[in-house]
Amino acid sequence: MTYCIGMLIEAGLVIVADTRTNAGVDNVSRYRKLHLLANGPERMVAAATAGNLSITQSALGLLEEGLPNPETGEIEKIENATSMYRVAQLVGRALHQTRDAVIEALEADKVSAAVSMLVAGRVGNERLRLFQIYGAGNFIECQRDRPYLQIGEAKYGRPIVDRALTWRTSLDEALKIALISFDSTIRSNLAVGPPLDLLSIGSAAGSQVRHYRIESGDPYFSDLSERWSVALNHARLEIPQPPYFLSSDQVEETD
Amino acid sequence: MTYCIGMLIEAGLVIVADTRTNAGVDNVSRYRKLHLLANGPERMVAAATAGNLSITQSALGLLEEGLPNPETGEIEKIENATSMYRVAQLVGRALHQTRDAVIEALEADKVSAAVSMLVAGRVGNERLRLFQIYGAGNFIECQRDRPYLQIGEAKYGRPIVDRALTWRTSLDEALKIALISFDSTIRSNLAVGPPLDLLSIGSAAGSQVRHYRIESGDPYFSDLSERWSVALNHARLEIPQPPYFLSSDQVEETD
Repeated sequence: MTYCIGMLIEAGLVIVADTRTNAGVDNVSRYRKLHLLANGPERMVAAATAGNLSITQSALGLLEEGLPNPETGEIEKIENATSMYRVAQLVGRALHQTRDAVIEALEADKVSAAVSMLVAGRVGNERLRLFQIYGAGNFIECQRDRPYLQIGEAKYGRPIVDRALTWRTSLDEALKIALISFDSTIRSNLAVGPPLDLLSIGSAAGSQVRHYRIESGDPYFSDLSERWSVALNHARLEIPQPPYFLSSDQVEETD
Repeated sequence: MTYCIGMLIEAGLVIVADTRTNAGVDNVSRYRKLHLLANGPERMVAAATAGNLSITQSALGLLEEGLPNPETGEIEKIENATSMYRVAQLVGRALHQTRDAVIEALEADKVSAAVSMLVAGRVGNERLRLFQIYGAGNFIECQRDRPYLQIGEAKYGRPIVDRALTWRTSLDEALKIALISFDSTIRSNLAVGPPLDLLSIGSAAGSQVRHYRIESGDPYFSDLSERWSVALNHARLEIPQPPYFLSSDQVEETD
């Protein structure tokens, strides 16, 4: 399993991905799922992957080698794409092609060929953009009204993001929201776990990528987790008791 | 879609279910999914359903008519079952039989035949028991270490339950936790919505079932939702900023 979230807000971009993979609960490993595919002054492209690891790894390998353009035959690479839209198309083609090559054999083995990716970055003077690529190669773009995209085990950690993240949230606050979202997910699904890879870049031209790996036992993440737990507990206890069955605990005395 | 949660704690049993069904987003209706199948001094059985509505409704209909015992041919009904374990077996048989009768036709129409149920209650002097029944008729029983079971859209609302509910939680507090769990689910999935049906019974012998329907705009539920939102926001703002990319918002000034 995997959980990755990408947030695209006015201040910039934040991506957080876990590193846990599993082929059954008896075969849990650690693989990097957040990759920097390009990182220069003219071009920054990051990708996070979810789903069948052999397919997403192969797709990244194929992208590195380059794909022939179906019309011109010319080899296309991320380093030559003229916009993030073209990057998303290229990644979509690589993912679809890789999946298509193995899907029948995987289905015969009853192994899931489901895959998805987040691809984000900037080419030239473009604004930062964030896409979610599906296994069929199609994709959607992140928009201001819902300034985030998730892949993998998305549901446990989604309510806090829905409540808290807006276009105007600061980068550090967005990162904090992402980490709370991971904390909820890690508690409910064993197959998502640290280390967590973080990546962030400001929206201003010339901003540089920052990345960091949060290891197990990281003091800030442990403190966040503890504070969040205590605060939720406190918040819940502050809410009055439901009026519907008052004294239902003592039902045996009143009935 | 559906979300139902059953909580079995020392103090008793709480079940909450929504009432929204949909066949595509353009065909949303309201159906009761929480049913009292028996409610007398000797026997109380409640059931909540999720999945294909035609199958779960038919299974409830079949249970009312009774199912022939596969060995003796005798007609078995919930009102004659000698324990909650027998009730769970009977409900499992009804669900499996009903699903089996239509699964091929549904699959040909690419309609999901997935179904599940929560079945809870007490027969005679037994303790309260809670089961989750799968479409194949097999089932699991709720246990003290994880004193709840969910069916339907379970993930959005699960983190708060994992954090807060224990065997020692009071009935009213458990109901509050269930309602917070519903609040998170309703925010993130349009296909889960009010009215919500509540049912509760104390664990002491002679306790009576209480039920209530929370309608849209219910003052307590609206207040709970508002308070929870405000408290989460406050809790999040109280957590210090992540130290990983300090001043990343101002990256354009420092790079």
